[in-house]
Parts: sequence; C-alpha cells; structure tokens
Amino acid sequence: MNRWALGIDIGGTNTAFGLVDEDGHVHYSNNFRTTDFPTADELAKRIFEDIEGNSGAAHLISGIGIGAPNGNYHNGTIEFAPNLKWEGVIPLANIFKSYFNKPTTVTNDANAAALGEMLFGVAKGMNDFVLVTLGTGLGSGFVCHGKMLYGHTGMAGELGHIVIKPNGRACGCGRKGCLETYASATGFKRTVAALQKKYQKSGKAVRSPLPRISAKHLTTLAEQGDALALEAFDITARHLARGLATAVAITSPQAVILAGGLARSGHTLTDPLEQHLNRELLVIFQDKVTVLISELLDDNAAVLGAAALVLQH
Amino acid sequence: MNRWALGIDIGGTNTAFGLVDEDGHVHYSNNFRTTDFPTADELAKRIFEDIEGNSGAAHLISGIGIGAPNGNYHNGTIEFAPNLKWEGVIPLANIFKSYFNKPTTVTNDANAAALGEMLFGVAKGMNDFVLVTLGTGLGSGFVCHGKMLYGHTGMAGELGHIVIKPNGRACGCGRKGCLETYASATGFKRTVAALQKKYQKSGKAVRSPLPRISAKHLTTLAEQGDALALEAFDITARHLARGLATAVAITSPQAVILAGGLARSGHTLTDPLEQHLNRELLVIFQDKVTVLISELLDDNAAVLGAAALVLQH
Repeated sequence: MNRWALGIDIGGTNTAFGLVDEDGHVHYSNNFRTTDFPTADELAKRIFEDIEGNSGAAHLISGIGIGAPNGNYHNGTIEFAPNLKWEGVIPLANIFKSYFNKPTTVTNDANAAALGEMLFGVAKGMNDFVLVTLGTGLGSGFVCHGKMLYGHTGMAGELGHIVIKPNGRACGCGRKGCLETYASATGFKRTVAALQKKYQKSGKAVRSPLPRISAKHLTTLAEQGDALALEAFDITARHLARGLATAVAITSPQAVILAGGLARSGHTLTDPLEQHLNRELLVIFQDKVTVLISELLDDNAAVLGAAALVLQH
Repeated sequence: MNRWALGIDIGGTNTAFGLVDEDGHVHYSNNFRTTDFPTADELAKRIFEDIEGNSGAAHLISGIGIGAPNGNYHNGTIEFAPNLKWEGVIPLANIFKSYFNKPTTVTNDANAAALGEMLFGVAKGMNDFVLVTLGTGLGSGFVCHGKMLYGHTGMAGELGHIVIKPNGRACGCGRKGCLETYASATGFKRTVAALQKKYQKSGKAVRSPLPRISAKHLTTLAEQGDALALEAFDITARHLARGLATAVAITSPQAVILAGGLARSGHTLTDPLEQHLNRELLVIFQDKVTVLISELLDDNAAVLGAAALVLQH
C-alpha cells in the first residue's frame, strides 16, 4: 500500500497543504491565509476539518510533515519566527498531533525544500548537497552523507546569516553584511535600487523606474542586454558566490541547488554565478560542485518538501 | 581482547606514530623526520621495519589510521599537499597496506584530531562539534550527528579558507582574507608584527622586539597586562569569532574545541573569543555553543587522533 503524507508549508502570508504519495503525486491540496489565524491551534483545527471534510482520504495519512519559518526539528516547535504573529515558542508538532493523532515532524522551510529535492527533484540520488532558497530571505538546507543536517540545536543551515561583508548592509537579524541582504529577492531589489541611483547620477538612461523592480522584469531586461540589469545580476551572483564558497569549504557538497523566486531567473543568474564561484572556490573544490536550479519551482514544491519529511523513511 | 591501532601523524616536518589501545593508552611510539624520505613508500617501509623490529606488538594491530595534510578519506590519498615534498596524488592507504596488510584509513590531520577528541578528549559523548587547530595554518574537523563530515570530495572542513575579510591579508591558497591569515599561529605573528609597527610609530614602548614573537611569550605578556599583547589576542579573537559564527550558522555544534599551538594560550585567547563570539552569533545560537580547549595538547595527541580513525568503529 502506497503511504501518504500530509505536507504542510506554513509561510508568513500563506499556508499550503496537501496529501502526497511516495511518488510525489499530490492527491488533494488547499491553502489558507496564515494571517487569518490568531493562534497555531486555530490553524491546525481548520486544516484538520478541511482534510476530514473534503479530502476523503484522511484515513490514508501515515504522518504529517511541516515546514515552517524557524522550525526546530528536534523539538517540533516554531521558535521566535520574526515573520509570524504567533510569538515565542510554539509546540507545533504537539498541536497538530492533538487533532490528527499521527506522527508529526517539523523543520524549517528550507530544510523541507531540500528533502523535497532529494526525494522528488534534481537531488535524487545525491548524498551531499545544499539547497538555497532565494526568496524574501535566503534559506538553506544542507544534506550531508544522505542526511539532513540539523545540528545540536535542530536549527543548523542558516547560510543567509553568515557575514560576507563586514559592516555591509543592515540585516533584519540586527547585524550587518549578512549574505541574505545581498543574495535574496529582497537583496536583489536593494541592489537594483542602488544601481538606479548610481546610473541616474551618471546620466545613463534607466529603463526601469523604481516601482517596477522585480526579478522577473529585470531578467527580461538582462536578456535584452540592459546594462543595469546585467550589473544587478552580476553583483548578486558575486556575493552569492562568496557565501556558497564558504558553504562548500565547510561541507563539500556535490551540488548547490537554487530555489525560490530569484532562482526563476535561471541562466541569467547562474551564468555569472558559476564564473564568480570558480574564482571564489578553494582550488581543491574547483570543478567539484555543480550549480543547479530546483525542478520544484511550482506551487506544490513547499508541500512536497514538507511531505518528504515523512516519506524519506 | 583489546584492539590496538597503529596511529600515524604525517606532518610537513615530522611523522609520529604509535600503537594505541581502545582506552587511548599509547604502548609504543616513535617518530621520524618526514623530510628524510623522498617518497611516501620509503617512509612506510621504515615505519613497518620499526614496528616489526622494535614494538614487539605488530601482531596486535587491527588497523592503521593516518592523519596527513590534504588527506582524502574517500580515496585514501594525500592530494597536492603544499607542505610535503611528495607531489601530486599519493595513494597512501595502498602504500601502507602493501607493507602491513591491514585495513588503512586516511584523513586530514584536523579530522583525525577531532576523532581523537571524540574518543579520548573533551568531546567524549558529543554528537555535534567542531575542532579547530590553530597551528601554522587553521585546520578544522566537523563532527555532525556523531559522524565525521567528509563531504562529497572527502575534503570537507576547510574552515581556514573561508574568506572573512574581503581583500584582506594574502593567503597561501592564492586568495585574500582567509580566516587562517588571521587566526592561526602564523596569523597571530602577522598581527603582532603589524601592532609593533603601529605602536613604534605612536611612540609607545614595545616590550617584545620582532625576533621574540611567539604565542607563549605574548601570552605571558598579556597576563602581565601588556597593551600590545592584549590587543593582539583581541584582534585574533575577533577574526576567529567571525569565522566560528559562520561555522555555527551552518552546522550548529554544541562546542567549538580549540587545539594546536595557539590554543595553549588558554583563557588569554578564549576570554576575548567568547565576548566576540556572543556578539557575532545569530541570536538563535547565542549561549548554545561552548568554547573548549583540547585536552590532548601533548605530543601524542595527533597519534591518538590518527588511531581514533580505526578505533571509532
């Protein structure tokens, strides 16, 4: 009998969930606005009622996997997530267990995405890789020797908050120069905004006024040869390369997999990234790491990743 | 029956080896000058003859563990070690097997030291820690979830070559601003030399003229309140803290263990290190990491570490 998992991706804005089988097929899915629920308990209750009432398959669930910001694998908790209004430490696994009465596992969203990639995406068969999500922030999940790296605290894999530029851009974490202030959808926008000022001062024509900054739009401009757009991707790639070179020096993965909104820029990002990375890498790691784009960039990716927490076993 | 391992530590200058039992007792040990041997084969032959002829216990050896610069665990090789005159890729495990006919495992010296610490030192019972050797260079070995982190290439754990200061000090690896150019015995000397110039220019009395720079001497001066010595340790600690904060963000260890020559400075180094580290760490890791000094700082430490490669199983 094919086992099914309930995969739940809790984001700052939206919570998506679905019933996923071992082949990665999504049999039922739905989503709610996270911000509509004052407590995690109310969200869990609503998802339980939805699955019981609408999926027709609640009895097939063998376990629940949840990807959530600041999700702690060891404790089954969300801990001080800055972009959720549920404050402090939330005993998320226990809350969901109280409704579903099924084994429930929690991890952060980037770790869940890495597991999804290992079971259903470009990392199939890989034992050592890093998944990097370039979204509002930069999240990362490290798989080492075939296993998710959780560390002593259960919170390992915070590549977004390594300092790559001392006294650099201010970061939401309170420090300066963190990788995610440069290499994320948000960091990319800051780079574009800074370039627009620079270009305007120098009298160069700027084709994209501020309100239209988006990675998608800039990708199109870069493909058309727009100097500002090309420079924005080059700067982003250079900083990302420095952060990845650090990740490689410590964990020596066979691949770096890019996911999240900015990863949709594809070669416009990876071409300069590979150039910078080869320069930044220690010589023993050169030509030993492949840069790949996630195969799970569609809407179900996060749900597949969360389900993979259960289905990996 | 207590199993014995032959632990061999191959360094740029000296090669030490010994017969170690499961409790970490060294029953026989000896050493040769690495530079006396034009090839690894000649060194292996000499060690074999010495063990056969003098130890009286060659028959008790269940396996051989070798720690060596640029040692590759997966391949059993030394690969392009800059401080050995044996060039290219050396099939070290096969060479030793051809004499001893015993299972032989190779890894780099810092990884061996980490395993030694886990079996016989301060990391007993720990599943997640980083060992950092502060010697001529900065070496590191990461133990994650109870296992040595080797990565896809077998060469993971190169914390010495993460860039912590873009366009900083020139490094032997050809890049700039690597952690080991600041945080190692060599980096420490560079810091002291730079401070001496600065102090001389400012007319401050300098109590330690250049030829006497040594960590041991500066530790004594720092304990006496010497401003230059205190500043040298503070600068070293600040850079080391930045590198360790990066290592913690990625792997989330419960402890960072310092070994190597500079670690003998003890609290003179760890007091400022802990202060800087708490400022550099992402908030979720603050007060979750302990800084410890290796318990294996004596001459047999490297041999115990190499033997641990065999005895860990």
